[in-house]
Amino acid sequence: VTNSFKQLRQINQADVRAKIRAGSYSGHTSGLADGFLQANLVVLDQTYALDFMRFCQRNPKACPLVGVTDTGSPYVHTLGTDIDIRTDVPSYYVYRHGSLDETATDITSLWNDQMVGFALGCSFTFEHALIRAGISVWHLENDRTVPMFKTNIETIEAGPFAGPMVVSMRAIKRKKLELVFSISANFPMAHGSPIHWGDPAKIGIADLNAPDWGDPSPVGNDEIAVFWACGVTPQAAILHAKPAISITHKPGQMLITDIAEDAQIPIMLPPH
Amino acid sequence: VTNSFKQLRQINQADVRAKIRAGSYSGHTSGLADGFLQANLVVLDQTYALDFMRFCQRNPKACPLVGVTDTGSPYVHTLGTDIDIRTDVPSYYVYRHGSLDETATDITSLWNDQMVGFALGCSFTFEHALIRAGISVWHLENDRTVPMFKTNIETIEAGPFAGPMVVSMRAIKRKKLELVFSISANFPMAHGSPIHWGDPAKIGIADLNAPDWGDPSPVGNDEIAVFWACGVTPQAAILHAKPAISITHKPGQMLITDIAEDAQIPIMLPPH
Repeated sequence: VTNSFKQLRQINQADVRAKIRAGSYSGHTSGLADGFLQANLVVLDQTYALDFMRFCQRNPKACPLVGVTDTGSPYVHTLGTDIDIRTDVPSYYVYRHGSLDETATDITSLWNDQMVGFALGCSFTFEHALIRAGISVWHLENDRTVPMFKTNIETIEAGPFAGPMVVSMRAIKRKKLELVFSISANFPMAHGSPIHWGDPAKIGIADLNAPDWGDPSPVGNDEIAVFWACGVTPQAAILHAKPAISITHKPGQMLITDIAEDAQIPIMLPPH
Repeated sequence: VTNSFKQLRQINQADVRAKIRAGSYSGHTSGLADGFLQANLVVLDQTYALDFMRFCQRNPKACPLVGVTDTGSPYVHTLGTDIDIRTDVPSYYVYRHGSLDETATDITSLWNDQMVGFALGCSFTFEHALIRAGISVWHLENDRTVPMFKTNIETIEAGPFAGPMVVSMRAIKRKKLELVFSISANFPMAHGSPIHWGDPAKIGIADLNAPDWGDPSPVGNDEIAVFWACGVTPQAAILHAKPAISITHKPGQMLITDIAEDAQIPIMLPPH
């Protein structure tokens, strides 16, 4: 039985994750698990792990690191009591030598004891705060995936990881721009404040109707295109680093955690 | 010619760093370079670097990572235009197999091409904000090093790194506690809000007059002892991990960066 998106919006984060793990939902997670941190996923062989952590540290707007597994462990204990990154993301992208090679809904058969998983904060966190403030978010209201674009802004490199910053775009009413800026600035672990607003050409985006990932989203006459650094940036860096294998979430289909999205730090402390 | 602390307070961050590099100052840096981020330093062999970055990610209140060098490079390009971690800290502690073995004012002769340097945010950053808000900070006014204590709060381990959280203590007027809490919360890269206030025994501190590092600081009758997670925590973790060699700053004698202490992210972007 397929679980509809509307039904999923009514249940809590642990139950959504259980349905994803069971394979009964493989769509986008925007608007699901209200109140809980969602995360981008990157899986790499341990030989790349140190450089990738440096890449995240040097590019914190795009790559806010919220969790890292031990080498060989698929569990992110600091993000929840029962999170298995091999099964708990709706859909995965499998990259081989830097090229997207395969889509999967479960990566258990690909996992090995040299792998490290990284969870990066996600803009869905501040979308919930925008909605609570009465700001409409088109892709959410229309059951689409937020549009994402490669830009001409270069990341700060670390080892083999380099390449363009990826951004997500939301159309915001001009008179709400300041409010949206200040709300999202409160979530540094979810990309924080926008990195650009207005003319997309200034950051190297030729056509707003042709996103590199996700679905096109209209920008009305009374609206302005607002761009946030995006957790898909590592996928562009993987194209550059070309590891033999790397695995990510499918853009828009995130790892749902047990961390409150307004938590001061994204860490679940062990019980005393 | 020795540079007095008072003279140093009058000059800018680059000049203070130059005097430290030249070997003409080797004291504490609290109150120096007003407006600029200061950092704790940890140097490790690359074989420990991935686990240490995991340790920092899992213990962000104690270990807010603000910079990482490339392996073998003593330069932290993201924290300034001319920072050499081998010479720019007033005094270093050299640990061998987990024991403090040596104090040095220059580690150039100890540096090798397998080493990685880590810079962690420091509470001096929010002290400047406290002073601007009219809150007195005793150790600053009395040219002492802030008192630091091991606690009974366990860090979240990563590989060989584990052990107690270290805290710094400041005596705060009771009526100012709320203000101090909210000011320091604005600096998540400088340990953020306090982790405890009041009875030191509750976090395993037996005697406020016998700090593990730094100088004792009095707590008046109208004051309360307030404790922040401290960037000396990695030094306690090094005692546990026992690497053949590791080098840190001497507690209280920090690396002065070119990053504004109120910067949204602690990254100096490369020139276009």
